Amino acid sequence: MHLQRVAAPLGSGSVAASRFDELLRRLGEISDLEHASSLLSWDMETKMPPLGAPARAEQLGTLARIAHELGTAPELGALLEELREVEAGADPESFEASVIRVGRRDYDKKRRVPSELQAEMTRAASLGYRGWLEAREAGDFEIFRPHLERRIALAREYVACYEPYDDPYDVLLEDHEPGMRTADVESVFARLKGELVPLVAGIEDPVDDSCVRGDFPEERQREFSLEVLARWGMDDRAWRLDDTVHPFTSNMSEQDIRLTARFNRDDLMGILSCLHEFGHGLYERQVDERYFRTPLAEGASSSFHESQSRLWENVVGRRLSSWRYFYPRLQELLPGQFGDVALEDFLRALNRVTPGAVRVDADEVTYPLHIVLRFELEREMLAGGLAPADLPEAFDAKLREYLGVEPADVVEGVLQDIHWSDSNFGYFPTYAIGSVIAVQLWERVTSELGDLDADFERGEFGGLSEWLREHVHRWGRAFEPPELLERVVGGPLDAEPYLAYLRGKVEALEPG
Amino acid sequence: MHLQRVAAPLGSGSVAASRFDELLRRLGEISDLEHASSLLSWDMETKMPPLGAPARAEQLGTLARIAHELGTAPELGALLEELREVEAGADPESFEASVIRVGRRDYDKKRRVPSELQAEMTRAASLGYRGWLEAREAGDFEIFRPHLERRIALAREYVACYEPYDDPYDVLLEDHEPGMRTADVESVFARLKGELVPLVAGIEDPVDDSCVRGDFPEERQREFSLEVLARWGMDDRAWRLDDTVHPFTSNMSEQDIRLTARFNRDDLMGILSCLHEFGHGLYERQVDERYFRTPLAEGASSSFHESQSRLWENVVGRRLSSWRYFYPRLQELLPGQFGDVALEDFLRALNRVTPGAVRVDADEVTYPLHIVLRFELEREMLAGGLAPADLPEAFDAKLREYLGVEPADVVEGVLQDIHWSDSNFGYFPTYAIGSVIAVQLWERVTSELGDLDADFERGEFGGLSEWLREHVHRWGRAFEPPELLERVVGGPLDAEPYLAYLRGKVEALEPG
Repeated sequence: MHLQRVAAPLGSGSVAASRFDELLRRLGEISDLEHASSLLSWDMETKMPPLGAPARAEQLGTLARIAHELGTAPELGALLEELREVEAGADPESFEASVIRVGRRDYDKKRRVPSELQAEMTRAASLGYRGWLEAREAGDFEIFRPHLERRIALAREYVACYEPYDDPYDVLLEDHEPGMRTADVESVFARLKGELVPLVAGIEDPVDDSCVRGDFPEERQREFSLEVLARWGMDDRAWRLDDTVHPFTSNMSEQDIRLTARFNRDDLMGILSCLHEFGHGLYERQVDERYFRTPLAEGASSSFHESQSRLWENVVGRRLSSWRYFYPRLQELLPGQFGDVALEDFLRALNRVTPGAVRVDADEVTYPLHIVLRFELEREMLAGGLAPADLPEAFDAKLREYLGVEPADVVEGVLQDIHWSDSNFGYFPTYAIGSVIAVQLWERVTSELGDLDADFERGEFGGLSEWLREHVHRWGRAFEPPELLERVVGGPLDAEPYLAYLRGKVEALEPG
Repeated sequence: MHLQRVAAPLGSGSVAASRFDELLRRLGEISDLEHASSLLSWDMETKMPPLGAPARAEQLGTLARIAHELGTAPELGALLEELREVEAGADPESFEASVIRVGRRDYDKKRRVPSELQAEMTRAASLGYRGWLEAREAGDFEIFRPHLERRIALAREYVACYEPYDDPYDVLLEDHEPGMRTADVESVFARLKGELVPLVAGIEDPVDDSCVRGDFPEERQREFSLEVLARWGMDDRAWRLDDTVHPFTSNMSEQDIRLTARFNRDDLMGILSCLHEFGHGLYERQVDERYFRTPLAEGASSSFHESQSRLWENVVGRRLSSWRYFYPRLQELLPGQFGDVALEDFLRALNRVTPGAVRVDADEVTYPLHIVLRFELEREMLAGGLAPADLPEAFDAKLREYLGVEPADVVEGVLQDIHWSDSNFGYFPTYAIGSVIAVQLWERVTSELGDLDADFERGEFGGLSEWLREHVHRWGRAFEPPELLERVVGGPLDAEPYLAYLRGKVEALEPG
């Protein structure tokens, strides 16, 4: 089967073909270990009895260590060198050139970091996570501060492994957004801040959203969510939806997609979260099946992934035309709550804009400002201009300045996110970049397919998902995000369509 | 932590202690990979969307291959050699001596088989399984025959890796029952056959078991099963029960036990199957926690495992005193079915003896004869005295001779079991040996603790499970089955208590 795939550039039975097959074998093993780890993590978050935790940590540690060993094996490096010629002689879009290119990028990246530093970062992340939990428990930032200091020191050591660079933050960003530069993010975020701070400040009359708060039995919400997702393309042959505490999506192959959800009886956030996770799941589901067991077989980057979840959750999932189709069913399932609520009122409630202190509760319009402030604080801390001891104050000051709100305490303030405790810096920006890309893609889709609202009103979403498959999903990690974006929308990252979209949202809320 | 454990025989900080820690590290990795595989298999049988199958096969293959590599690494062999002195100087019951001894046994065993043969056996098993499915589908043994022939040829090659031996079947048995010999099995099985064939033939008046056939909603059966298991010691912190097609138990550590069940609306087999799986689960749950991540951390053998499942399913689970406690609750949950059925009638139905063609549907008394005939056929095929082409006829002839029954067709006959398709020979006997051991243990428990019926009637089962923990479970794989049996019951494998127990069962069914 492999020979058939590589016949064109390599020649069946040639030495190069057999070396390429050896590369696929090695990369396949790494992929298997990573997907096995995904299952262990998925199970830990959805099914595992609590006392299983210590053993699970050991198992995940062992799988990660072996995957790292295989991924940095000198034999793999030598093989990738041998295959340089094959890569140079092949179309860059071809399967072979892409596997070799991305395989080498991953290899080079992993080799840069000494395994002791890698281990120390893992350890600090685990301690940092526990410190964060304790600090939240005690409502005391000081408990978390030494962990944060340690993590910043390690992040600097990590950054130093990748010298030279233009900006130290580039190194961290590269982990999540290959090819994207801090300067690009900076200019987009400056634009977002400049426009959104006054826009949010100008919203005077809050929408009545009492209809989306109340008593909504979890099982009804699940039933409804599954019906929407089925309409969007989820099926039992390749997908599952399970309960968890903090929803996420993972996959064990492009044919085994696991969404997770948490339904709360007193609001509909669980439904929107399902729509969000679906976007992540569909991306993985529609990666070219030839990429299976290669490093190409996942989304291009964190931002591109987030663009898909935001597109389905927000652009499609909070849209009038979509709800023209789905709302009658929601009314049917929850007649006491929605029987007397007009579609337009429901939709206004769903799109309400209200500044608040908590990122994960934020609406579409205020959300990016939560990200901008975190990006700025991360960069300042990394550069040394902001000491972790001063972080709570700086955090609150920016919340006030950008959103006009004050957190109730440090738990609702600077300690609200897990990210600074257990994962690396450079991840937050991808949440907002994802929203920007989502709207760029949406503009492109509708310019090509025309207004999709008529389709959505009839419950037809296949045109959109097929377009995404063709232009984005199937390419997996074959292209770096800037190149993929250029190919799809014909230009670089651009905040304008997103800002226009957000202005439209705010205008739609203005009373009749 | 390790140093503390090994302080006594090794001396903290000594070279030997550090070599022993290195052994624990290496064995721990293997254990992690094996438990990760267990989770992948568990998920495959309980949760995985069907299209996930091909990727899962690759993942399981990779984990097994890496675990095999680690388990046969020359460095591991050298380490075990270095530690011979430590083993010789330690109490054989000590943690250290046991880990080194069992670690070396596993290493030597794995090293005997060339990896090409191992891979070929895995491949033949996978093809054999598919051939078996096809043969069942078509109702044609001839489709399966070449697979069986191939598997017998490979089994002979496998056996040859372990020369010298007294009996080729010893080699296969050793995979499941370390230290047990074919001659031991032969003499126990001769005794079973001699006694049970006439006993079964003499049963004239079948018991009316219509009360255990009917309409029993699956959810009620699950609820009842969970209540029984909770009473027996299952809890949500360390156990789960999930649905599957063919029930099994697996565990990811001694603190993460996964039972599976299949409830059918028209009978109560699902409940009994839960009681069975509980026995397996409790065994793993009660292994000494110091054995975690070592090769000691599982049951001593297939027979010992089966002895536990049979003990809880049959000796306890089909017992009058147990049902005096549980039956009122079953009546409460299924009032339409059991409201008017007297406990004694229910119990007679549960213990009905009726010869049939299908092993997995067999009652306690006829069951061992299904095993004896398979053991005899396996040995004949391996020795070459019986050609696979003649297996269907030989199978039916033995069914007639031992049980007086005739299968409806080959699917109900020789093709009924999966075992000859996908696993190695030598496993079937452990099912019956397990029942024999179960009753030997039961005799011993009651001779020490006295009649447990009064406890059971009050719903108290902790005395039994604690006795099992102390004498059997906590030792894991530290002792080979014959030694463990000798320690616990003070003698070798003995069919007599089991035969007396079965005679008692038959007598209890006689009217009036």
